[in-house]
Amino acid sequence: MKGRPIVALAGGVGAARFLDGLARVVAPERLFIIGNTGDDAEIHGLHISPDLDTVTYTLAGLSDPLRGWGIRGDTFRCLESLGRLGGETWFQLGDRDLATHLYRTERLRGGAGLTKVTAEITGALGLRSVIAPMCDDRVRTRICTAAGELEFQTYFVKRRARDRVAGIRFEGSDHALPAPGILAAIEQAEAIIVCPSNPFISIGPILAVPGIREALRRKRDRVAAISPIVGGRALKGPAAAMMKSMGLRSAAAEVARLYQDFTSVFVLDELDRKQAAEVEATGLRPAVTNTVMSGRRERTALARVLARELEIEP
Amino acid sequence: MKGRPIVALAGGVGAARFLDGLARVVAPERLFIIGNTGDDAEIHGLHISPDLDTVTYTLAGLSDPLRGWGIRGDTFRCLESLGRLGGETWFQLGDRDLATHLYRTERLRGGAGLTKVTAEITGALGLRSVIAPMCDDRVRTRICTAAGELEFQTYFVKRRARDRVAGIRFEGSDHALPAPGILAAIEQAEAIIVCPSNPFISIGPILAVPGIREALRRKRDRVAAISPIVGGRALKGPAAAMMKSMGLRSAAAEVARLYQDFTSVFVLDELDRKQAAEVEATGLRPAVTNTVMSGRRERTALARVLARELEIEP
Repeated sequence: MKGRPIVALAGGVGAARFLDGLARVVAPERLFIIGNTGDDAEIHGLHISPDLDTVTYTLAGLSDPLRGWGIRGDTFRCLESLGRLGGETWFQLGDRDLATHLYRTERLRGGAGLTKVTAEITGALGLRSVIAPMCDDRVRTRICTAAGELEFQTYFVKRRARDRVAGIRFEGSDHALPAPGILAAIEQAEAIIVCPSNPFISIGPILAVPGIREALRRKRDRVAAISPIVGGRALKGPAAAMMKSMGLRSAAAEVARLYQDFTSVFVLDELDRKQAAEVEATGLRPAVTNTVMSGRRERTALARVLARELEIEP
Repeated sequence: MKGRPIVALAGGVGAARFLDGLARVVAPERLFIIGNTGDDAEIHGLHISPDLDTVTYTLAGLSDPLRGWGIRGDTFRCLESLGRLGGETWFQLGDRDLATHLYRTERLRGGAGLTKVTAEITGALGLRSVIAPMCDDRVRTRICTAAGELEFQTYFVKRRARDRVAGIRFEGSDHALPAPGILAAIEQAEAIIVCPSNPFISIGPILAVPGIREALRRKRDRVAAISPIVGGRALKGPAAAMMKSMGLRSAAAEVARLYQDFTSVFVLDELDRKQAAEVEATGLRPAVTNTVMSGRRERTALARVLARELEIEP
């Protein structure tokens, strides 16, 4: 018996680090991870799913510990040669990493859904947790800036997230369906965790898939979220700047507010202890702990806090 | 002034080695190489043009001297990782080599023709010769065997050319058009050389593109062919076994017969000197020399013989 599912909503690096801890605190078989695919892209004709891969590589023990993305010790010979041919090289594709994209692209072109292909990849890499894309449909995060509307990876990687963000939309989300198994996993979940990921561009696309946010609301008392903002700053990525440019304070309590309709527990960092009252006033139960995951010890400790707050059965 | 074109019909490794010599004997700018694309394949969703690449890498000084194909010193990390994911790995794709396939595939999907894409690749690698695919259309060599009709690379690489060949057809050739510039190059050519390549699966597909064989016939007195058969054996590949299974002798003179309608000079190896009379009886002028290209010296020497026989102006 593996017990009821523990569902996690995940973006990229921050989520992956937390999930690496969680998989050491609860049985990995119980984890049902819903991954963001709004930042998927077609690059050199390959279907890239950066967030799914970051979580996959991290749980498989393959990730690069410094960069967070990609595969440890990977080489970039193909990319170097592409550059010599005049191809674009701003999106870093390692030689081993490329195999994942080639495999995924070929399977998708052959008609398989992204959920199935992701299961094949995670299975081949020995993962015991489920990693499900939020949907099998094509949803693409588009960033509105003064330079016009940008594809997500153009904004994020090519232009290094420097443009002021005036708005975000999730192209295709209106007609997307949650990937197979997602709504059932949420319904049956013993607990649901919103990972410390960017609320706009990592968790936002998942919530934009019709049906998911509603399903989470029905389980509100089982949902906990971890703040991706610590001391007013994002540990990784443009979340803080985005909040400001969208007219919000870059504060943990503001994130709690964004999630209040479907979340009952909100985990903030010791640094933000003073915001606990504000979180409580929003109707969420605050839990204060160290959320900065410097290493495995911190990842596991944070996972233990979540397990305790959500009373997850061991 | 670069002079009138010298056209070459080329397969893979044998042709590439000869052309490497030829490009040292005549100005590389004059070479207009018509490459076989009958053995092109889609592998892992990538458009592979093995013969075009072998010639390109060789002329660019990048080829692996032992294998003949691929790039010298290339690594196979992506392929190893693909294997781990359960992908097929019988077609060897090096990490640097992959860049060529990615670039080509993306450009073709974007609507560019293979001729244009090949020119981009050869240009980026510094080649001064033209390498043109025989056509921009999809033509695929299919091998009839007791195991059924096989895709060329399945027959050649996956099954190691071990099946007895009952027949060969070039799917799509009926409606193919010679690539842009090919017929004009043949018409204007000072000389035309059929490289020492397999007559069935390397030169055969080129000749099967409507219009090319006819154009060569009109220039018959300017065409020389080099035998790919030496002492009854092919130096590389299955040509000899193929000839036998197609009811022919595996002899240089038999190749001369296959080309007699469009070729006036036939170069055979010293080992096959006795067949010169038979070649002559077929209506071709035999030229006997060493055709085994062990190294650069032999490649250049063979190229000089061709230049002399065809009276190519230096």
